[in-house]
Amino acid sequence: MKNAFYAQSGGVTAVINASACGVIETARKHSDKIGTVYAGQNGIIGALTENLIDTSKESDADISALKHTPSGGFGSCRYKMKSLEDNKAEYERLIEVFKAHDIGYFFYNGGGDSADTCLKVSQLSESMGYPIQAIHVPKTVDNDLPVTDNCPGFGSVAKYIAVSTMEASFDVASMCATSTKIFVLEVMGRHAGWIAAAGGLVDDSIPVVILFPEVDFDEKKFLAKVDANVKEFGYCTVVVSEGTKWADGRFLAEQGTRDDFGHAQLGGAAPVVANLIKDALGHKYHWAVADYLQRAARHLSSKSDVEQAYALGEAAVNLAMEGKNSVMPAVIRTSNNPYTWEIGMGELKDIANVEKMMPMNYISDDGFGITAACREYLQPLIEGEDYPPYKNGLPDYVVMKKEMVEKKLPSFEV
Amino acid sequence: MKNAFYAQSGGVTAVINASACGVIETARKHSDKIGTVYAGQNGIIGALTENLIDTSKESDADISALKHTPSGGFGSCRYKMKSLEDNKAEYERLIEVFKAHDIGYFFYNGGGDSADTCLKVSQLSESMGYPIQAIHVPKTVDNDLPVTDNCPGFGSVAKYIAVSTMEASFDVASMCATSTKIFVLEVMGRHAGWIAAAGGLVDDSIPVVILFPEVDFDEKKFLAKVDANVKEFGYCTVVVSEGTKWADGRFLAEQGTRDDFGHAQLGGAAPVVANLIKDALGHKYHWAVADYLQRAARHLSSKSDVEQAYALGEAAVNLAMEGKNSVMPAVIRTSNNPYTWEIGMGELKDIANVEKMMPMNYISDDGFGITAACREYLQPLIEGEDYPPYKNGLPDYVVMKKEMVEKKLPSFEV
Repeated sequence: MKNAFYAQSGGVTAVINASACGVIETARKHSDKIGTVYAGQNGIIGALTENLIDTSKESDADISALKHTPSGGFGSCRYKMKSLEDNKAEYERLIEVFKAHDIGYFFYNGGGDSADTCLKVSQLSESMGYPIQAIHVPKTVDNDLPVTDNCPGFGSVAKYIAVSTMEASFDVASMCATSTKIFVLEVMGRHAGWIAAAGGLVDDSIPVVILFPEVDFDEKKFLAKVDANVKEFGYCTVVVSEGTKWADGRFLAEQGTRDDFGHAQLGGAAPVVANLIKDALGHKYHWAVADYLQRAARHLSSKSDVEQAYALGEAAVNLAMEGKNSVMPAVIRTSNNPYTWEIGMGELKDIANVEKMMPMNYISDDGFGITAACREYLQPLIEGEDYPPYKNGLPDYVVMKKEMVEKKLPSFEV
Repeated sequence: MKNAFYAQSGGVTAVINASACGVIETARKHSDKIGTVYAGQNGIIGALTENLIDTSKESDADISALKHTPSGGFGSCRYKMKSLEDNKAEYERLIEVFKAHDIGYFFYNGGGDSADTCLKVSQLSESMGYPIQAIHVPKTVDNDLPVTDNCPGFGSVAKYIAVSTMEASFDVASMCATSTKIFVLEVMGRHAGWIAAAGGLVDDSIPVVILFPEVDFDEKKFLAKVDANVKEFGYCTVVVSEGTKWADGRFLAEQGTRDDFGHAQLGGAAPVVANLIKDALGHKYHWAVADYLQRAARHLSSKSDVEQAYALGEAAVNLAMEGKNSVMPAVIRTSNNPYTWEIGMGELKDIANVEKMMPMNYISDDGFGITAACREYLQPLIEGEDYPPYKNGLPDYVVMKKEMVEKKLPSFEV
């Protein structure tokens, strides 16, 4: 009977802990085959430095509460393992740690980079003669993993952005006759417009202009679109991705803002866009930058996102029990309306280093909105509510006890 | 039997429509004494320009749905009536419009300015020989009205800020060992720190530094506090009010930011604070500006806020039925724990032009947190959840039909 290792990787989300819950609860059901689940303290760095959290010391109730707690319950990191050629010692160290703690299952919960690490660990463990079943559990608000219908974490961000866009638009609509006519919301997504696209899920009666990273920013065309909306609706809401760029490749957010001391750019894309509108059209504006609020907003998670995050954690353990290796459980969409899905599986060799871009036919011809195809894809992902319990007016989120496992190896520098 | 006039004033909130619902539903119950409730299109401007919405054309179901819909369902404005001496014609016009439409009840839903307008209309109507019962319905996220325990709209903003502070802090806590250590959230409140104070409602295990407009910004002391938090907790969350000022009176947000073209200041206080920390302590940061999202977030309203907003609208009509004039229904706190309250009443002469400031004993000695007294006051205001219904993943907010009443008077310029 082997132990298991679980780690969270990269930017955390509202539901990555739901996957952790799925992994640990399911492993506990297989106590005849899986010993203890160790979790990496602060992600893969915890494995490299042998800082392992003994999850068996966490109560059933606390593990269950992970399902409704945002952030990374065991800590995460953005540490990207180098290539096998460049830093074989690191991979060997991982396997030494796994060996020292009798770990036979490696569950790695993250995006593209962690899928790649997972694949390499699996390959190296074979060649080193210490077999490890490496299973990747998908997670990323960027929604850029192949094979799976979507990535846990994304649906909840999309719901947050769609609801926030709707609510702020209602606000502006009721004041626009004599006051603010422009509201600009800046959202995450440096490389892809998936999150910005969610702003397009509001009803057609709300005039939303979306600025995607995929579409070069055309100031003249943009201002004309905003102007037309203000004339028709009395106001205009703009959802701008932090990754939106000018035609010359500079980010909007980099537009040369300086403070008294000459420090570069303090602001984001939202104030830049708002100011362009003010200068050209003269409208009063307000802007918001959602930043971490959007990916941490477990209070507004989509039900399908929470369910899929849990199901993928659960499936990862079940795949391990079936003897699978170098694979990732995935969401397979079986119907759009009603939305139905099942858990499938992909091979890590088909997933690592493959980025799923937003299809260009998801962006409307004018470049400022989403198409019916995009809405059909996105709509189910924000459906359903899954509220956390509250205590004294605040969500009752859990904090892990994090009891550390005794170290057995010499220290290792990362 | 007289008709009634209802108008929304100033910045809208997550629950001002709940007050509208309370007014209209209660008026419908008194159909033996109150004819039609007319609503001002875009606030008091609708009365001045005789743009009246006939709320009797809105279905019971739609009026009921106002209770869970943020923003101003009939439109609002920031139009401040001048003093009686400076613009008596405007007040006279108001009364002419009321007379033309047989309006005997004036329900004005807003903050300090609208309380003042309400008082003057009541006074002038007497001297003009056309009696109008003017009742003010309190509303303002600024929480600065006297007599009432709190102002509808504030509790929901406070809940939003407390929950957002908690969620973002969980996010940063799980990444801080190797990544972002500082999160700065900018909140509303140009004159008072009520909203910023709500960031202090999170558990003591979360290190939050609050920057209040009431406390001059002391950069050295602030950086020392942040540094101490990072050393103790590994990270630090900062909640900064948009109204925070340097000792010389300049707003932090005005710190001389310029773009390539020399345009002044695009950003807010949050990026300024984040950059100060980065420069002095070197920590990686993220920042968010909640802006309208905080006051429009009906998806996260506090239950007590919604109930009080409705109860005050209801009470306004009941006070009118009792023959009251020049008054405002108010929330009277009868117990802290458990939180109990009842509806009382204040005279507009004691309310108009009186601003309730945050007591200085609500701010901790170091100026960066809230005291036990503040927590005791704030805590009940964020308690309870009151979720809107959802449809297709989005809140099912209502939009009024807004059928206009036929005009009877010559036009009037505002």
